[in-house]
Amino acid sequence: MKVKVGISNRHVHLKQSDLDILFGKDLTIKNEINQPGQFACNEVVTIKTDKSEINNVRVLGPVRNYTQIEISKTDAYKLGLNPPVRTSGDLDNSEVVTIIGPNGSIKTNGCIIADRHLHITYKDKEKYNIPDKILVKIDGIKPGIIEVNVKTSEEAYFEIHLDTDDANAFLLKNNEEVEIL
Amino acid sequence: MKVKVGISNRHVHLKQSDLDILFGKDLTIKNEINQPGQFACNEVVTIKTDKSEINNVRVLGPVRNYTQIEISKTDAYKLGLNPPVRTSGDLDNSEVVTIIGPNGSIKTNGCIIADRHLHITYKDKEKYNIPDKILVKIDGIKPGIIEVNVKTSEEAYFEIHLDTDDANAFLLKNNEEVEIL
Repeated sequence: MKVKVGISNRHVHLKQSDLDILFGKDLTIKNEINQPGQFACNEVVTIKTDKSEINNVRVLGPVRNYTQIEISKTDAYKLGLNPPVRTSGDLDNSEVVTIIGPNGSIKTNGCIIADRHLHITYKDKEKYNIPDKILVKIDGIKPGIIEVNVKTSEEAYFEIHLDTDDANAFLLKNNEEVEIL
Repeated sequence: MKVKVGISNRHVHLKQSDLDILFGKDLTIKNEINQPGQFACNEVVTIKTDKSEINNVRVLGPVRNYTQIEISKTDAYKLGLNPPVRTSGDLDNSEVVTIIGPNGSIKTNGCIIADRHLHITYKDKEKYNIPDKILVKIDGIKPGIIEVNVKTSEEAYFEIHLDTDDANAFLLKNNEEVEIL
């Protein structure tokens, strides 16, 4: 079975109270992304630590119940952090960073490396008999097989989300197809 | 069979005439590396393109017959390059960069992404019946299997060389062990 890959660059999700401090206004839509209801915002922030900082980190909307900062291991070395690999919202013992917006700044936990995950509806997971973890074959000049977690929801666009480290290790581009074994 | 991983950060090898222009003096040893006769130098350069630049790129010695710049795909995006994945010395259609040293600068081809490779002696390759390409299993929180080329020489320290994208995708640290399948 083939599936497309969506490559996630570093980004942040914000809760309302943090959005208020950082921007003092609502998020504005730059473009919708594949997952239903989700969008990239025009708003960007700076992520700062004692060691370094990264500018122009995009905010993804809509507002969530938690603030979460998703970075790659490459980013983590630059920032001097050791974030856990996690699914969205699982933020116990996540790393602490300072987020700087045009209206203010916050120091918050919530910094993680996102796990590799497949988005699929409950219905399709059952229909196609997909287990909770899958093996995915990637072809090309630097081929291999990676383990990917399966993330179900009521509504979902069927795609695998990988971060830029995974994508760059396998020379994958956005929307390229890989194979579920 | 287990084997250790050596993680190669971006680096350059220099031919004598380029070393003369960039530094105007001999290379000096910072520390020896595992491969026999090879060493990290105290000398560093800047790699520059029209789009961006990366500072503090380490020179590896000794001097070679060709100048070669090894970067990751992550670096390539930053620099606006599309280097081929190559074994050392195979530099046809490699990318062009400017290298800046304390004594001068050169514009040269030779910029590649190094292929994933296992260093092994001719003797051991035959002894252990290792094919020209191997599959390597990586455990951990983000596990998988990658294809690795086998690179033979008369003298070799038995280890796999991966770049920082591969290492960061699998959360591998220098000298960690992986398994040849």
